[in-house]
Amino acid sequence: SMSVYILENKTHGNKAFSNLNEGYGKVLRYGAYSEEVLERLRWLNGGMAATLGKAIELSGGIDIRALLAEALHMGDEGHNRNKAGSVLYTAKLAPFIAQAAPDSETAAKILKSLGDNALSVLNPVMACCKAMADAAHNVEGSTIVSTMARNGTDFGIRVSGLGERWFTAPVATPKGLYFPGFTEADASGDIGDSTITETAGIGGFAMASAPAIVTFVSGTPKDAINATLEMYEITIAEHKAFTIPQLDFRGSPTGIDIRKVVETNTTPRINTGIAHKEAGVGQVGAGLVRPPMEVFHEALMAFAEKYGF
Amino acid sequence: SMSVYILENKTHGNKAFSNLNEGYGKVLRYGAYSEEVLERLRWLNGGMAATLGKAIELSGGIDIRALLAEALHMGDEGHNRNKAGSVLYTAKLAPFIAQAAPDSETAAKILKSLGDNALSVLNPVMACCKAMADAAHNVEGSTIVSTMARNGTDFGIRVSGLGERWFTAPVATPKGLYFPGFTEADASGDIGDSTITETAGIGGFAMASAPAIVTFVSGTPKDAINATLEMYEITIAEHKAFTIPQLDFRGSPTGIDIRKVVETNTTPRINTGIAHKEAGVGQVGAGLVRPPMEVFHEALMAFAEKYGF
Repeated sequence: SMSVYILENKTHGNKAFSNLNEGYGKVLRYGAYSEEVLERLRWLNGGMAATLGKAIELSGGIDIRALLAEALHMGDEGHNRNKAGSVLYTAKLAPFIAQAAPDSETAAKILKSLGDNALSVLNPVMACCKAMADAAHNVEGSTIVSTMARNGTDFGIRVSGLGERWFTAPVATPKGLYFPGFTEADASGDIGDSTITETAGIGGFAMASAPAIVTFVSGTPKDAINATLEMYEITIAEHKAFTIPQLDFRGSPTGIDIRKVVETNTTPRINTGIAHKEAGVGQVGAGLVRPPMEVFHEALMAFAEKYGF
Repeated sequence: SMSVYILENKTHGNKAFSNLNEGYGKVLRYGAYSEEVLERLRWLNGGMAATLGKAIELSGGIDIRALLAEALHMGDEGHNRNKAGSVLYTAKLAPFIAQAAPDSETAAKILKSLGDNALSVLNPVMACCKAMADAAHNVEGSTIVSTMARNGTDFGIRVSGLGERWFTAPVATPKGLYFPGFTEADASGDIGDSTITETAGIGGFAMASAPAIVTFVSGTPKDAINATLEMYEITIAEHKAFTIPQLDFRGSPTGIDIRKVVETNTTPRINTGIAHKEAGVGQVGAGLVRPPMEVFHEALMAFAEKYGF
């Protein structure tokens, strides 16, 4: 077992969890499990988690939604680019880590580990999105997507008004940029549950906030603006907390409506990491992908059957 | 006397210096000198500077130009918005501060002070700009502005090919937004030497990088883009290290050419803080200002006299 972050939705009282982020490349969450991977996990779960837990307690808890809102004003989109969020997270926790660590060497090691990892805050961010999305699940009559997740083979969604049923279809392979030494031929099918970020209105949906991300996922800054603009077509609301300076502080497009997806024939845009297709290698790139349209068709039919209209 | 940062231009070997940043509001550099101001200065110059100095030594030195380049991809423009740069600076130094501090309480206090102050990195950034601009000074035949500075009464520039002569004229008053309780009636004339940032191609010149700054200085994100676009008209180059994602990674407009300023009748754009007109109060707002056109006219005439064309 591994230590986890606990994220609480203060309004609705529900909680979500995530482990500690391992960084890029050879990491367990992308299928790598060599000795160095296990060694890092032991350190994360040992000295790091113990001190981090104490530091978070000393801090009284970090408001991840507020941090994320700030990061969106600092060039992050919260899924594939968390550079600003991760240094904000490091800087906010730093005084408490200094106090909580058993000695200054441990404090220094943890601070370096958090500050150097541009994904440090991704895991608390995903759990924050999960805590928000779960609060929107199981609303009678709602056509809003409350979960999107992939397992490398199938892409699945759940819809708020359709309970625990998953609508699934085969995944696509992300298009993007590869780390040195890897190509599209190495890519696994789309994988992971990080699409909870797009479900909650950030990531690919807030890409306009993150023009510099194109150096990592391909495309141009104009594409990033267009990605967000397109997502307004399939969402029900503009986020009150997450605003996009590049679009005159318009709220990020939030709440995927299966009716709008089908009506406009536009699937959600997802920024994601790319795993190697073989177990043991790890993350090999990052790029863009969309869910299969079938899952939205199927969900809409199920909705019509259940609610009779 | 106060401890200073030492910034070295590694290419040219020249150095520049700046003190530690005090934060916003009641601060000595904007004319406040109450007991709380002096108390903070004593702390900055005492425990903080001692540990920070050791930490910077342990780190082997921080590459402020690289940090600034990163911050421009994170919504800063480097003069009036240094939010990202300051947390980057805090996160980079944090492990070394943990090691250098005499005890964990001091480490925590310094980390909190650096991380909570969105201007922490402004002073090293200004000294970095000074070290770059000084290297461009005293180039025979050069029409590039190598210094801009204001003292609340006069605005002065120096031109690279015109040696130590200052060209001065009365300052304007910045237009901007005021901190609660203050209005334009409280504003001092434009003041300070922070315009070294615009001289070096950031600040108002890189405003396109910082759409969220408009909440602090007034205007719209589109104005921020236009500010940078206009500055390409009066500059000689596009910066190699400082690129602007919003403009497809175009280099920031750098090197104000007095010939272009006069020819296009366009003065440089400056983002700046606003001081209270009475001594003892401090910073009361932030906004935008331009130098008086006369100084460029005068400099161009002096150039023609000296070089005979």
